[in-house]
Amino acid sequence: MRPCETATWLLAFALMLARQAVAEDGYDLWLRYRPLPAAQAIDYRAHAAELVLDAGSPVRAAARSELLRGLTGLLGKAPKLSDRGSVDGAIIAGTPSSSAAIARLDLGLRELGTEGFLIRSVTIDGHRATVIAANADAGVLYGAFRLLRLLQTGQPVDGLNLRDRPREKLRVLDHWDNLDGHVERGYAGNSIWDWWKLPGYVDPRYTDYARANASIGVNGAVLNNVNANAIILTHDYLLKVAAVAGALRPYGMRVYLSARYSAPLEIGGLKTADPLDPAVRAWWLGKSNEIYALIPDFGGFLVKANSEGQPGPQDYHRTHADGANMLAEALAPHGGIVMWRAFVYSQDNPDDRAKQAYTEFKPLDGQFRDNVLLQVKNGPVDFQPREPFSPLFGAMPKTPLMMEFQITKEYLGFATHLVYLGALYEEVLRTDTYAHAKGATVAAVIDGELDNHTLTGMAGVANIGSDRDWCGSMFNQANWYAFGRLAWNPAQSARDIAADWARMTLANDDAVVRPVIDMMMTSREAVVDYMTPLGLHHLMGTGHHYGPMPWDASGARADWRPVYYHRADRDGIGFDRTSTGSNAVSQYTPQLATQFQDLKQIPDAYLLWFHHVPWDYRMRSGQTLWQELVTHYTRGVDEVKQMRATWAQLQGRIDAERYAKTASFLAIQQDEAQWWRDASVAYWQSLNGLPIPAGQAAPAHALDYYKSLTFPNAPGR
Amino acid sequence: MRPCETATWLLAFALMLARQAVAEDGYDLWLRYRPLPAAQAIDYRAHAAELVLDAGSPVRAAARSELLRGLTGLLGKAPKLSDRGSVDGAIIAGTPSSSAAIARLDLGLRELGTEGFLIRSVTIDGHRATVIAANADAGVLYGAFRLLRLLQTGQPVDGLNLRDRPREKLRVLDHWDNLDGHVERGYAGNSIWDWWKLPGYVDPRYTDYARANASIGVNGAVLNNVNANAIILTHDYLLKVAAVAGALRPYGMRVYLSARYSAPLEIGGLKTADPLDPAVRAWWLGKSNEIYALIPDFGGFLVKANSEGQPGPQDYHRTHADGANMLAEALAPHGGIVMWRAFVYSQDNPDDRAKQAYTEFKPLDGQFRDNVLLQVKNGPVDFQPREPFSPLFGAMPKTPLMMEFQITKEYLGFATHLVYLGALYEEVLRTDTYAHAKGATVAAVIDGELDNHTLTGMAGVANIGSDRDWCGSMFNQANWYAFGRLAWNPAQSARDIAADWARMTLANDDAVVRPVIDMMMTSREAVVDYMTPLGLHHLMGTGHHYGPMPWDASGARADWRPVYYHRADRDGIGFDRTSTGSNAVSQYTPQLATQFQDLKQIPDAYLLWFHHVPWDYRMRSGQTLWQELVTHYTRGVDEVKQMRATWAQLQGRIDAERYAKTASFLAIQQDEAQWWRDASVAYWQSLNGLPIPAGQAAPAHALDYYKSLTFPNAPGR
Repeated sequence: MRPCETATWLLAFALMLARQAVAEDGYDLWLRYRPLPAAQAIDYRAHAAELVLDAGSPVRAAARSELLRGLTGLLGKAPKLSDRGSVDGAIIAGTPSSSAAIARLDLGLRELGTEGFLIRSVTIDGHRATVIAANADAGVLYGAFRLLRLLQTGQPVDGLNLRDRPREKLRVLDHWDNLDGHVERGYAGNSIWDWWKLPGYVDPRYTDYARANASIGVNGAVLNNVNANAIILTHDYLLKVAAVAGALRPYGMRVYLSARYSAPLEIGGLKTADPLDPAVRAWWLGKSNEIYALIPDFGGFLVKANSEGQPGPQDYHRTHADGANMLAEALAPHGGIVMWRAFVYSQDNPDDRAKQAYTEFKPLDGQFRDNVLLQVKNGPVDFQPREPFSPLFGAMPKTPLMMEFQITKEYLGFATHLVYLGALYEEVLRTDTYAHAKGATVAAVIDGELDNHTLTGMAGVANIGSDRDWCGSMFNQANWYAFGRLAWNPAQSARDIAADWARMTLANDDAVVRPVIDMMMTSREAVVDYMTPLGLHHLMGTGHHYGPMPWDASGARADWRPVYYHRADRDGIGFDRTSTGSNAVSQYTPQLATQFQDLKQIPDAYLLWFHHVPWDYRMRSGQTLWQELVTHYTRGVDEVKQMRATWAQLQGRIDAERYAKTASFLAIQQDEAQWWRDASVAYWQSLNGLPIPAGQAAPAHALDYYKSLTFPNAPGR
Repeated sequence: MRPCETATWLLAFALMLARQAVAEDGYDLWLRYRPLPAAQAIDYRAHAAELVLDAGSPVRAAARSELLRGLTGLLGKAPKLSDRGSVDGAIIAGTPSSSAAIARLDLGLRELGTEGFLIRSVTIDGHRATVIAANADAGVLYGAFRLLRLLQTGQPVDGLNLRDRPREKLRVLDHWDNLDGHVERGYAGNSIWDWWKLPGYVDPRYTDYARANASIGVNGAVLNNVNANAIILTHDYLLKVAAVAGALRPYGMRVYLSARYSAPLEIGGLKTADPLDPAVRAWWLGKSNEIYALIPDFGGFLVKANSEGQPGPQDYHRTHADGANMLAEALAPHGGIVMWRAFVYSQDNPDDRAKQAYTEFKPLDGQFRDNVLLQVKNGPVDFQPREPFSPLFGAMPKTPLMMEFQITKEYLGFATHLVYLGALYEEVLRTDTYAHAKGATVAAVIDGELDNHTLTGMAGVANIGSDRDWCGSMFNQANWYAFGRLAWNPAQSARDIAADWARMTLANDDAVVRPVIDMMMTSREAVVDYMTPLGLHHLMGTGHHYGPMPWDASGARADWRPVYYHRADRDGIGFDRTSTGSNAVSQYTPQLATQFQDLKQIPDAYLLWFHHVPWDYRMRSGQTLWQELVTHYTRGVDEVKQMRATWAQLQGRIDAERYAKTASFLAIQQDEAQWWRDASVAYWQSLNGLPIPAGQAAPAHALDYYKSLTFPNAPGR
């Protein structure tokens, strides 16, 4: 063969192999780095001829490795590694101390803090270059991922002048992972932490996990369940934790642990865990010293105390502040922090569950050490499809409040339903608390702007497991992605984030991206409609939280039973939280309390959260409540049908494996949306005796059928 | 650019992508189909120019798809699909009814049965061709995989005249998978069966599972744990089972289910499960009809009855034969079979546990229906590193005995230890039972040759889970592979099988394969040495079965306690199973009973299985028993060190990911082999008060240290 012939034959061979390479099993998440269209690649290659990045630190080495990987994948050619930009089109990345070129430029880095970065098109020594500059290595890493995102989403990269820094200091994933590998409320397989094989075997997957997080700015992970096992704090397990920390560190991530409050009894040999007991304080200080000897950058503790049966300081008649401060004191010498959860309620407290966290914590404002954050779930109950924001936001100005969102879909259809949570997060973050005045959004509370806190944070309960695609479905990956992006900057638009995600994950092709965004942005309202419209909440199957069980009055605790929340009877439905009821409205600032109290002002979306209303109550639409309710249920089902139809149009535009999996899941979702609608309607009908509203279909089965369904093997318990 | 330049540039690009393609995460098992060296590929391509295979049935379509995939991967070029071989070098595959060319040839297919095949080099119409011919589609599929194996292992493919058919009819994997996804004694993640999402979502992984099994001849899978949940037999779950069956069927696999004997009570609404009760019989017949309506080729039931707390016919004072026959009768109209496990022993029976299965089942010989097999574990206790064969083999000539091997390493170091079980299986299969005369090997018993059974089988307790590499480690894949190969033909050599596996899985390169075979063939004796040398057994941690716990006398049942098995004291060690003890020797044929009874004749490997011996007993080697025991422990550790050193020499010859993972695991294994040795020696020393033999190292820690270790989160429980 002549050389050219050989090359042509080899080319065919290599392309065949390359096709095998693009198996789309979802493992690569949004960091797929598949080849860009040739014209675009050629254009970008003019801006990526050389890479100048001193890899003398682990974090900068990670940044260089990612740029090499990403640019090679996207552009089909690795940039030349160089000590300095000697040609047009270099990428020069670093800090003033790691890059002489960056030190020489006047970039105004100071305001970027320790994690911010800038990307700027410059001319150095007569050569065009793109500079990624930061004060510290983490910023270089974040800048590297940002530059790659520009390419992945097809943005221009000439004339760049982009500056960014995170608005939240702590951007943390909470893994509810048990030491036996089970993930509580996890629907994507087992825990990715293989405690059994650690520290002897450090799974390379930990590095890919860290890469994905760094790409969206997540800088911390709580490795174990808030329903914690004290064994994680034994020396043998701390060695395992240290091995994980070693894998995450090059990507700017710190590890945290959930601390079981009674650990001094369980593994410490003490007879008390009283936070004011000197031996207990000494034990935690010793444990803190032991941890930091193994993990110098350990982040700190997350604590669920005196909540749902967990031990805590109240077992010793101490306050949550006493409890948190004792741990904070032990961590403070090493720079660690405590994230103390405000998710508390007691079956012994007859007051409305939605009120109890506020009642408990509001009086403690100002009593926490300055390395304590109070971690508050977005709503006052528990991660429902829609809740009003927790009244604690804005009510504790002297305490840094950290947001806790749930990324895993405990109450939202587990892994199979398509529900884009970016829309939920955005709705919460943009809500005005009216704390001091109009404009005091939840975002302004948690990013510290409102009350001048510098210790700020956002936590997301991870949806990550050992499934190949990490999250159990491709669209669940979008929720991890959106969480990270919003933790970095709560002001970002959920729609824009969805667009970026879809371009990187599916295809940078408007014919795909536009319909996908439509599906995503519709999906959250759809799930509210088919599960719990008009402010209904917590009607899911008791325990497993899957499927409708509004009739259930059998749970171990009154406040775990659906009937506690809907209070429906022959005459009406809804939880009266106005002044004639539990008066939860009074926990909000006066503007909101007035609005929520008043039937004329209450938004439809919160109607049955705050009001008990007759079935024949006339809604703004002119329909009765009963008609409106059924209309919402039906609309939810129709929205899923529409999502399914939209997806069907994308067949052929998306690889077969991901197309088929999502198509299967949407079919499941449609069936289950119908089940939710029909079971709910049948049950309400059994109470109110009203006919199905005109034009609406009757439930497919009688109520007894829905009541007969059981799910003994539901995952995530 | 000139065309040739473009091609060269594209080539570099494509090769880069191709490099990304060869991520070696183990998912592809031994079906990697990576490109062969160019010279070899060119040679083989002359024999794979065209593919003539009528894909008009699902099984033949699977065969064609696999040939296309394999040939394209190995040779870099897809064969041309053709209706008939029009050029030299066609592969013509099919049955006489699906291929006119094959129908015309005189191939002598008859003796190949329904699953056998031949591969022959022929000339048809003047063209060289390779024929894969069989009587039925399954044979075509097996032949396709065999041809691919020839290429994968670098065998010549001209002048082929290869005929093969399976020696066992049922070649079955037993999955001990629970409906909640947990795998009992599984160390490779969760169950691959995603019952929660089935039948709405059928994971493409099921197809890859079936491909792997077909490639080694496995033709059945029991989907659920022998400690069964009756829910699998409800209609909703049968729909899920049917979906799995649909994915496996094109690869010649049938599904089976473990049946819980008390299902008529639990899901049938009956008040009894008495096998002689007409309502019970009717219920099972109805259930069988229901199953076959959904799954026409359903295989049948596996049953663990009256064993370790499972329900069974003895609850109603009926025999195992009564119990098995009732189920067999329900399945018989549809061609289904019952695999009834002989693994029974009772804590209420004071007799030696090793004797109880024989005592129970031997008298039932001849009482089972002809669609019942008795499934017998290889040894009389429970999957230990080494046991003598179960005396039932050869003792029940009127009953088809099916072998039950364990592939998952419950007692052999879980996922991390490298133990090649092909060596164990081979040792068992080649053992002479002396049933009628010399030469009546265990293999001859189970393949039906000895007693003229046509219903034959071999089961392996699967080591498969949701881990990306299926089995928790690459070398565990070899155990799945060896099981399948030996189930197809128990006469094959474990070493040859190891060689094939290594060539396909690692590299077809003697510099890799030879050392790897050495490691594998050493590994089984190593684990016997460092865990339970000289016939010791069942000294693993009670419950989880990990690590040494010879001192444990605390288990819930006497026959679950290590001290039950070693019976060591100041004076000696070992279980007297001779006529002066439990007389288990009498369950073997006279030749073996005599040999096992006699201290002069007993092989060292079974010494302490059958004899209680003083510590100063003089061994054949001239050493005392105590010296010999410590020598074995030390040798076990040394063998692992040697395996580790051998592996280290392969660095650079194996891709980094698989090299590193195995290196980590071998380091863990070495630590744990040392732990086994030291803890065992320390404990025996605490009993016998003897000094450490000269030249041997003392244990690293005092006995109390080893006793203090706990493993609350050990997997697989």
